[in-house]
Amino acid sequence: MIDLTTIGANARRSAHELGLLSTKSKNALLLHMADAIEHNTDAILAANEQDLAAAKLQPINQTVLDRLTLTTARILEMANGMREVVQLPDPIGRVDQMWRNADDLLIGQQRVPLGVIGIIYEARPNVTTDAASLCFKSGNAVILRGGKEAFHSNQALVTILQQALTDNGASPDAIQFITDTNHETAAEMMRLNAYIDVLIPRGGAGLIKRVKETATVPVIETGTGNNHVYVDQAAQIPMALSIVGNAKTQRPSVCNAIETILVHESVAADFLPQLAEAFADQVELRADEKARVFLPQAKAATEEDWETEFLDYILAVKVVASLDEAITHINRYNTKHSEAIVTDDYFASQRFLKEVDAAAVYVNASTRFTDGFMFGFGAEIGISTQKLHARGPMGLEALTSTKYVIYGEGQIRP
Amino acid sequence: MIDLTTIGANARRSAHELGLLSTKSKNALLLHMADAIEHNTDAILAANEQDLAAAKLQPINQTVLDRLTLTTARILEMANGMREVVQLPDPIGRVDQMWRNADDLLIGQQRVPLGVIGIIYEARPNVTTDAASLCFKSGNAVILRGGKEAFHSNQALVTILQQALTDNGASPDAIQFITDTNHETAAEMMRLNAYIDVLIPRGGAGLIKRVKETATVPVIETGTGNNHVYVDQAAQIPMALSIVGNAKTQRPSVCNAIETILVHESVAADFLPQLAEAFADQVELRADEKARVFLPQAKAATEEDWETEFLDYILAVKVVASLDEAITHINRYNTKHSEAIVTDDYFASQRFLKEVDAAAVYVNASTRFTDGFMFGFGAEIGISTQKLHARGPMGLEALTSTKYVIYGEGQIRP
Repeated sequence: MIDLTTIGANARRSAHELGLLSTKSKNALLLHMADAIEHNTDAILAANEQDLAAAKLQPINQTVLDRLTLTTARILEMANGMREVVQLPDPIGRVDQMWRNADDLLIGQQRVPLGVIGIIYEARPNVTTDAASLCFKSGNAVILRGGKEAFHSNQALVTILQQALTDNGASPDAIQFITDTNHETAAEMMRLNAYIDVLIPRGGAGLIKRVKETATVPVIETGTGNNHVYVDQAAQIPMALSIVGNAKTQRPSVCNAIETILVHESVAADFLPQLAEAFADQVELRADEKARVFLPQAKAATEEDWETEFLDYILAVKVVASLDEAITHINRYNTKHSEAIVTDDYFASQRFLKEVDAAAVYVNASTRFTDGFMFGFGAEIGISTQKLHARGPMGLEALTSTKYVIYGEGQIRP
Repeated sequence: MIDLTTIGANARRSAHELGLLSTKSKNALLLHMADAIEHNTDAILAANEQDLAAAKLQPINQTVLDRLTLTTARILEMANGMREVVQLPDPIGRVDQMWRNADDLLIGQQRVPLGVIGIIYEARPNVTTDAASLCFKSGNAVILRGGKEAFHSNQALVTILQQALTDNGASPDAIQFITDTNHETAAEMMRLNAYIDVLIPRGGAGLIKRVKETATVPVIETGTGNNHVYVDQAAQIPMALSIVGNAKTQRPSVCNAIETILVHESVAADFLPQLAEAFADQVELRADEKARVFLPQAKAATEEDWETEFLDYILAVKVVASLDEAITHINRYNTKHSEAIVTDDYFASQRFLKEVDAAAVYVNASTRFTDGFMFGFGAEIGISTQKLHARGPMGLEALTSTKYVIYGEGQIRP
C-alpha cells in the first residue's frame, strides 16, 4: 500500500514553494517539461504499448481504446498543449478588487493558488499533461490518480515531467502520481483532508458518483451532461435542424452533446419529419406518443430515456404544448450542464435564459460550445456542473482561491 | 422522524419561485418579515423562556446562556438586522463579465442563486433571522437546523417568518425549520444531495468536523480561528501592545480573536514585560522557554497550546529568531483564518502577506477586523476558512453561483 501521507506532505511543501514562484519561472519550467515530453516520445510510446497490449486482452470498447492510444502526433499535441498554457495569463497575485473600509484599512482581494489539487481520472493519458500543466501554471501541486488502463502511459509521462523539474532545480513533488490503481488507495486519497484542498474527478457518471459519496475533501463535480435543445414555436426550422444536428452528432460521446429535444407542438409536423430525414440511419430516435405521430418509425421513449446521458447516436424526442412545459421538463431531468432554445421570440428567449437552471444556457446556438477553448479561456480542466466555486468550463482561474491582504496603520477594532 | 424529502422538495420548488422574484418584491417581503418579528416580540420572548427554563436545569456555560437569552431590545435588533439586508444591493442577475467569443457568440457570466442552502447551527437564535434574511435576499431557499438549546425560540421565529410570507402571497417553504433536533435527522440532511445545494455549518470546531465528515452535500467550512500576531523586530512596541491587546481581549470568544503571539527575540525583552503588565491578571500567558525568561510568572506552553483555539483569556507566547520561523510556525498551526504582523519593515510586511496562508493577512492591524460588517459587506453569513468558493467573510455574493447566458444567431461548432 502506498504511503499517501508522505505523498501529501511532499505535495503540501512543494505547493508552498510553487506558490512563491514568479510567472516567468513557472513558464520556463513548463517549457522544459513540454520539451521533455516531446524528446521522450519513444519511451512514452513504449509505455503506451504495454497499456494497449493489456487492453486488447480485455473486452474493451473501441472508443476507450482510441482514447488510450498514443501516437507521435498525439504526443506532440500534448507537448504543444503545455506550451499553450505558457501563453495564458497567470491569475496568481492579481488583486481583483481593493478598497478602503470605514476604519481606513486598505483591503485587497488577491488571487492565490488552491494549494494541492487531487485529480482522479479514467483512461485518457492526455489528461495527465493537461491537468499537470494547468495546476502548475496556477501555482498548485497536483496528485494524479489515473485509471488502470493507462497506468504505464501515465507513469511514463509523470516520470518525464518530474525529471524535467528536477533537472531544472524545481521540486518534482509538484506533480505526483499514485502508483497503484486499487480502489482503497483512491478512497484514502479522497479523505486526505490534511493534504489535499480540492478533488476534481474527470470521467463518467460512475466515477463522479463514487467520488462524491466517498470524499471528505471538497469536490468539484464535473462533466455529466443530460442536455436538451428546445425547438420553440417561433423557431426557424433550418436553424433548428442545424443546431440539433450539430449538438447531437458532431461528437456524441462528450458531455456537451444533447440527449433529448423538446419540440413545440405547433412546429412538430414541419420539423420532425425533416429531422428524421436528416438523421436517416445515423441517429436512433426515441419519441413520446405525440412525436411518434410524425415519426412513425421511432421507438417509444420511456421514462428512463428522459434521464439518460446516452453519449451515443440516440436522441429522445418529446413534443410539448408550451415553453412552460419545456422548461419544467428540462429543470426536472437535466444535469445542469448546457441547454438551448431555438426561437425568434424575444420574450421566449429571455424566459428560457432566466428560468432554466444550468451552467450554460443558449439562445440560437449549439450546446457544443460549452468548452473552455470555445469560451476563450485558452484551456480547460473540466466542466463544473455544481454551483459551488466554479460553474461551467473551468480555466486557470477556477484553480485559484483568494486571500484578503490588508494594509493598516495600527488600527484596532473599536 | 421528519420527512426530509418533502421538506427538500418544497424548498426546491420554492427556490425556483424565489429565484424569479424581483429585488423589489424580495425587499418588500423582507420588510414584512422584519415587522412580523417586531410585532410578535411577546410570543418570541415566551418561546425563549421555555428554552431558558430548560437550559437552567442543565450545567450550562454562562456565555452560552447569554447567547441564548432574548430581550425586547435583542428582538428589535434582529428585526432591524433584516431591514439592513433590504438596503444591500441584490447580487442576483448582475452580469460580472460579458464578451464575444471567436465564433461571435455573446457570452455573459450572470449571478444566480445557489438554490437551496442548509444551515446547521448551535444555540444562537439570532442566526435564524440573519441566515433567513441573507438567503432570502440572495434568492435562495433555506433549511435551518438549529441546536436543541434554542429549539423553541427558533421554531417561534421561523413560524412568524413563514406566516409573514404566507400573508403576503409568497411561499412559506422558502424558509423552513427542521422540527426535531436528533443527530440522525441532521446526518440525513447532510446527505440530501437531491435537494440541498450547499451546507453552511455555523458553530464550534466539533460541529464543523461532524458536518465535514458526514456530508455529501458540498460544505462551506466556517469559523475556527487559531490566529496569531507576529511582533517583528521592526515593530513599534506601543502599536504591538495595542494590536495584541485588541486582538486577544476585545472579545476573546470569537473566531477572529488571536490565540498565540510570536515575538522576535530582539524585541522580546522590551515587549513581553510590558505585555504582561498590560494584561495583569486578565489574561493567562503560556510561554515557551525563551519567552519565560521575560515572563517568569507564565506557565510553560505545551505543544497542545500551539494547536488550541482557546476562545478565552489565555494567550500562548513564543519567541522566534526570525520572520521565517514565525511564518513556518503560523503555516503549521493556523486554521487559515486571520494572521497579522506588526512591523515597520517594508520587506517583512510583503513577505508576510505573500507567504502566510490564511483567509485574511494583516499588516499593522488587529485580526478582529475579519468580519463582513467591518469589511464593508453590510452583513455576514459566516467566515469561510476553506479555499473553495468563498474565503474569509461571506456576504450576499458568497450565497450566489453563476450561469453563462449565451446569445447566438444560429452558431454551430465547426
